[in-house]
Amino acid sequence: MAELAEIKKQGLLYRGKAKEMYTTNHSDILWVHYLDQVTALNGKRKVQMTDKGKTNCVISSQLFTDLRHQGIKNHFIKQLDLTDQLVQRVQIIPLETVIRNYASGSFVKRYQTEYLQKFSQPVIEFFYKNDVLDDPFLNDDDALALGLATNDQISEIRQIALQVNQHLIQIFEKINVQLVDFKLEFGVTKMGTVILADELSPDNCRLVDVQTKQSLDKDIFRQGLGEMVPVYEKVLQRLQQSEEA
Amino acid sequence: MAELAEIKKQGLLYRGKAKEMYTTNHSDILWVHYLDQVTALNGKRKVQMTDKGKTNCVISSQLFTDLRHQGIKNHFIKQLDLTDQLVQRVQIIPLETVIRNYASGSFVKRYQTEYLQKFSQPVIEFFYKNDVLDDPFLNDDDALALGLATNDQISEIRQIALQVNQHLIQIFEKINVQLVDFKLEFGVTKMGTVILADELSPDNCRLVDVQTKQSLDKDIFRQGLGEMVPVYEKVLQRLQQSEEA
Repeated sequence: MAELAEIKKQGLLYRGKAKEMYTTNHSDILWVHYLDQVTALNGKRKVQMTDKGKTNCVISSQLFTDLRHQGIKNHFIKQLDLTDQLVQRVQIIPLETVIRNYASGSFVKRYQTEYLQKFSQPVIEFFYKNDVLDDPFLNDDDALALGLATNDQISEIRQIALQVNQHLIQIFEKINVQLVDFKLEFGVTKMGTVILADELSPDNCRLVDVQTKQSLDKDIFRQGLGEMVPVYEKVLQRLQQSEEA
Repeated sequence: MAELAEIKKQGLLYRGKAKEMYTTNHSDILWVHYLDQVTALNGKRKVQMTDKGKTNCVISSQLFTDLRHQGIKNHFIKQLDLTDQLVQRVQIIPLETVIRNYASGSFVKRYQTEYLQKFSQPVIEFFYKNDVLDDPFLNDDDALALGLATNDQISEIRQIALQVNQHLIQIFEKINVQLVDFKLEFGVTKMGTVILADELSPDNCRLVDVQTKQSLDKDIFRQGLGEMVPVYEKVLQRLQQSEEA
């Protein structure tokens, strides 16, 4: 878009747990600012962390660009500086889509399976994006009954999620990182198309170093395993080196 | 089967929360005895109730017979006396299949919807039949990942569950009862066929009187709403009168 240079930030539309969204002088474009903030337990635990926003913004910008090159439509338009992006305005579908390649997190808790047990095929789970209800787990029938998405949208989400998974597995494999699971959000454009939205960073991916089995994601914060931002920066460095190679 | 009269009860195979299963002198036939016992909270609350087993055995025998007449294969063979049945021996699939026509129970709790809100189409939910894990909710991908059922079995369960739902709605409509939701269990025969198993009674159906909106099921016990067995007997009487009409 030729006019991208003239996009101006306007009022705050929404302040989330890790990002602020602003409207712009273009009705179809939002301005995203990544915060130096990390939360857990649905926001009940909240900590400020220098450079956290920067790291996530840059990682997310790179991964969304990579996915676009692989033909996966997403809301990312442009990285403005180290903490800010322009994205396409979409109506977010209130389903958090979790794709699991290995058992971890709530899956292990619910079914008491072995941590990092490999699944023979990716497991997709939906959660109702609803802070008041604490983002409850739901199935396709529940999502339809609650009017959160249509049958076609759910099919499309599932299909795109599996494509994203294939590409992300490869991207992370190249930097010696195992993609355990990750969370996606989708939005509907003005034209009614379902596209990938939100962010892609160690905040919503579970990543494990292939050699050391060390967590390279938000589990460091959730489980109090040490400094989180240096680990996020390590992921970013490896991604950038891989890109340059 | 000509030899049914010669079936003899043998050793206790399994004692559940509401039934005992015995082997018989026929390897494909089990002897079910319905207990005068009711439990809630996954067995943490347990009470003895005279005539409860009888009521459930007779209701379940009648409903399974009705479903067989509608072409729905199930494990029920014969009612022996007021508390005992012969059933086909199957390998139980460890999925509790819940079919919901109106919001109630854990659906309302999870998603804070209105009690008895009507769904535009039936909602099917699976729960992992596992006392240690407290029967957790799961989706199809989870069931596959945990090896609880095959893709084909899940499709078949879903299809049979919807057929059962259609017939049960009609049966209960005739006796002025609203079928809110119910739980089914399925088993696999020696030949590999998925058939309906377990029981069908006010223990695993949520039933509401169309006029009074009174609960006619185990919610009376769960919520301490009064004497349960007289209400179960009322359901049985109405079913028997409807059958005779």
